[in-house]
Amino acid sequence: MVTERRTQRMKRILNFRQTDLTVVCENIHDPHNVSAILRSCDAVGVNTVHLLYTNETFPKLGKKSSASAKKWLDFKRCRSHLELQETLRDQKMTIYATYIDASAKSIFEVDWTQPSAIIMGNEHRGVSPEALAIADQKIFIPMFGMIESLNVSVATAVTLYEACRQRLIKQQYQQLKDSAWIKERLNRWEKL
Amino acid sequence: MVTERRTQRMKRILNFRQTDLTVVCENIHDPHNVSAILRSCDAVGVNTVHLLYTNETFPKLGKKSSASAKKWLDFKRCRSHLELQETLRDQKMTIYATYIDASAKSIFEVDWTQPSAIIMGNEHRGVSPEALAIADQKIFIPMFGMIESLNVSVATAVTLYEACRQRLIKQQYQQLKDSAWIKERLNRWEKL
Repeated sequence: MVTERRTQRMKRILNFRQTDLTVVCENIHDPHNVSAILRSCDAVGVNTVHLLYTNETFPKLGKKSSASAKKWLDFKRCRSHLELQETLRDQKMTIYATYIDASAKSIFEVDWTQPSAIIMGNEHRGVSPEALAIADQKIFIPMFGMIESLNVSVATAVTLYEACRQRLIKQQYQQLKDSAWIKERLNRWEKL
Repeated sequence: MVTERRTQRMKRILNFRQTDLTVVCENIHDPHNVSAILRSCDAVGVNTVHLLYTNETFPKLGKKSSASAKKWLDFKRCRSHLELQETLRDQKMTIYATYIDASAKSIFEVDWTQPSAIIMGNEHRGVSPEALAIADQKIFIPMFGMIESLNVSVATAVTLYEACRQRLIKQQYQQLKDSAWIKERLNRWEKL
């Protein structure tokens, strides 16, 4: 039995969900990284995480509390970059991928208040050429140190929180959702 | 032998160092978390990391590349909260600690362009009462999901990157440092 208080909390959190902000995990294989990414997604209110596993299998996530963000998120598996592109385009999302070149923009210069999908690549290989090919904009996290990369879960969190900061300013966490949308998810969440 | 190009890169990075921004690791015991924190510190240009291990031992960090940020950072061990407080006060730093209560400020509302020390607490127990007692301001990271906490290395990175964002706007990465300060560190770095 779910208490009325918990139901109210779930409703509040469902209203916070940012349905026009998504993360794509492209062949990220370490379960700790995936768990941490899902936790950050839940924290900033991402609703749906896209999974694109073309040459890795999606890792088995542990049962520890750190992995439990999984149950509060929707997942959409895509079998190819083309399918991913169509899915995101249908939602009018701009597709971002982390990659440094002359055309890449700092995450602080991107307008994250618009519908956005962020592709995060494999730990060793980074974002694939196929992912870069479907990206509308390359992005990078400014770095000022001797080490030239961040852990993928850290990079995801830093990017998502910049989106969160911008969306807080625009009061995008205060936009109420369609009641049927809330109800459908609430029914699922109350059974978890 | 260090190439001239590498020396120039080191000089550039030393000039980026934010000597008035520091992280305090308070009894953080997981080596992966500590390594990830150090990597984020290096990335945003933290120069000195404070270590306050009063009831845990500082973990042995692995030899993987992810742990190698350690060698590019200065460390200051403090044996007590009082010693930490005096050290930070001598540098005119405002002391922040992550803790949610009515007086806590969002990380997005803090002015990180001023001299700042951020205390990050143990994975399970969080920031200690003694750390809260020496903190000038409690801070929190806004969260909108069902899971109520972030991994400590993710929380550190998100906070440091908000500081980084503000400091970029104020051009604090462009302030040249004293040449003796650079030289002393360059001598050390060239031997690494």
